[in-house]
Amino acid sequence: MRIAIDAMGGDHAPDTNVLGGLEAAREWKDTEIILVGDEAKMRALLPEIPSNLKLVHASEVIEPEDEPVRSVRRKKDASMVVAGRMVKEGLAEAMISAGNTGALMTTGLLVVGRIKGIERPALAPIIPTIDGKGMLALDLGANMDATPEHLAQYALMGSIYREKVQGVSSPRVGLLNVGTEAKKGNELVKEAYPLLEALPIQFVGNVEARDVLNGVCDVLVCDGFAGNILLKTMEGTAAGIFSLLKQQFSKSLKTKLSAALIMPELRSLRNIMDYKEHGGAPLLGLNGLVIKGHGSSDTGAIKHAVRQARIAIKGNLVSSISQEVIG
Amino acid sequence: MRIAIDAMGGDHAPDTNVLGGLEAAREWKDTEIILVGDEAKMRALLPEIPSNLKLVHASEVIEPEDEPVRSVRRKKDASMVVAGRMVKEGLAEAMISAGNTGALMTTGLLVVGRIKGIERPALAPIIPTIDGKGMLALDLGANMDATPEHLAQYALMGSIYREKVQGVSSPRVGLLNVGTEAKKGNELVKEAYPLLEALPIQFVGNVEARDVLNGVCDVLVCDGFAGNILLKTMEGTAAGIFSLLKQQFSKSLKTKLSAALIMPELRSLRNIMDYKEHGGAPLLGLNGLVIKGHGSSDTGAIKHAVRQARIAIKGNLVSSISQEVIG
Repeated sequence: MRIAIDAMGGDHAPDTNVLGGLEAAREWKDTEIILVGDEAKMRALLPEIPSNLKLVHASEVIEPEDEPVRSVRRKKDASMVVAGRMVKEGLAEAMISAGNTGALMTTGLLVVGRIKGIERPALAPIIPTIDGKGMLALDLGANMDATPEHLAQYALMGSIYREKVQGVSSPRVGLLNVGTEAKKGNELVKEAYPLLEALPIQFVGNVEARDVLNGVCDVLVCDGFAGNILLKTMEGTAAGIFSLLKQQFSKSLKTKLSAALIMPELRSLRNIMDYKEHGGAPLLGLNGLVIKGHGSSDTGAIKHAVRQARIAIKGNLVSSISQEVIG
Repeated sequence: MRIAIDAMGGDHAPDTNVLGGLEAAREWKDTEIILVGDEAKMRALLPEIPSNLKLVHASEVIEPEDEPVRSVRRKKDASMVVAGRMVKEGLAEAMISAGNTGALMTTGLLVVGRIKGIERPALAPIIPTIDGKGMLALDLGANMDATPEHLAQYALMGSIYREKVQGVSSPRVGLLNVGTEAKKGNELVKEAYPLLEALPIQFVGNVEARDVLNGVCDVLVCDGFAGNILLKTMEGTAAGIFSLLKQQFSKSLKTKLSAALIMPELRSLRNIMDYKEHGGAPLLGLNGLVIKGHGSSDTGAIKHAVRQARIAIKGNLVSSISQEVIG
């Protein structure tokens, strides 16, 4: 199998991307890792080039501040776009990028293309839960508006991914809502509810935002707007509480002593709340595998994304989704 | 001025409602407090009946599990409905209830009635911020779906309430969104943005969910669905972190010692995150003042709701909103 890595996208590119790719090539000999980017820069970073590591030159880079649609259209030789084209043309089964999220979604849509029958691809990161298992949530930002039919497709794709790639058998799929009763919610989720009930998935009904952290389901279905509010509120609340804790801990000698005693435990707590710890987020519904790595991905995160891609390719994720949609 | 209190609604009714009403009557001699409920029960709880405390008998009670619309229509002599009717008929300027939220919203809509020109009333609680000042957020659940015009009316009503009743001059009004740029968001907020810009308020633009706790605005405008996701996620995340903290603190003798040292600070932190601490939530847009007390309201909370109602009545809140809407 062949996995293309956008070597130029992300806060620590190209260094961590190139070295992460090298580590992946060393670990999985059956996998061809294709680094796409400035060849001279990539070569300079590599102490050796194993036989299953390929370099593909791309002369342009999509920057974080670039406008997504325009940059993907104009920068035809950008590392991200070239990697996307390789997936489109069957030269790679998957691509990974830690670059501009909007541009990656555009690359997915315009370069890689959708699975026939899928109306909207969805971004599906893992959000944290207290038990450490996480919850696959989609859509978290690929589309701001959704129809009930889109939510049903998210549910189906999320369930397949969670089972095939993350090894959760018969994943519990929940619908993000304001209450657990079936008739609750806005028009969108009220109409989506019976559609989810009719799918060949384990639909566990509505899930309230306050129960997400408790891991009440394995796959959480929501529109991109509500999902963003959920994820950003979790982030903001956790950050706020930790900053308040820090304030309280530095109040007096007594509290400083207490802080010193508990510090390792607080750090591990903070890690539980950090969704960046949970690997790359797939863009589901595309005619090929596209994985979004977090902007601040380090070598380990890149390697972890390769691991995810390998499992997805082996599990025939894309064709499984395609078959379910065509039914 | 006359303020009706639904004596029978809430977890600790009628006790705390009656005693809270008594305390309010004792403190504010210029205010007539009207307790509405089972007269015998109310009388049995009162050690004395000051001249500005009135009892109005109501033979029925709306229970927490009652279906809102049906119960308000059928239980015509329910304490909540009778209090609403007093506002409608000009026998009281305000009503306070800690009972069934859905039923109170229905009472507001069907019994008290809307201000002419207001399409949807909005529930406007204070949500916590780190600086302790809180943020008035609306709508938090009166209507699940909203149009851009509804959001604009929420913005106007929230700004007036925050200024008149909570004493914030020229309150900063923000629109809950997925990013701060003007073109961000779903169709609803994209269309609402220019409407908010055109209002005679201090519109500070889009506000991201992760910045809410930092108090980046005084009034937060959102549809009832997104608002519920925001508030419930804050609650759930805070509860989750505190439960994880508790786990970590009880891990060893060392961490237990640390916990004992920091406990008072942790308690005050927990209080900051508890939005129940922040008083009653007005239902804005009605032809009279309706304040929702939290279900678990104690005597102090009931008295605090009376204080809010007094300020709103003195500030001519309802006619101010009415004038701004008619323009």
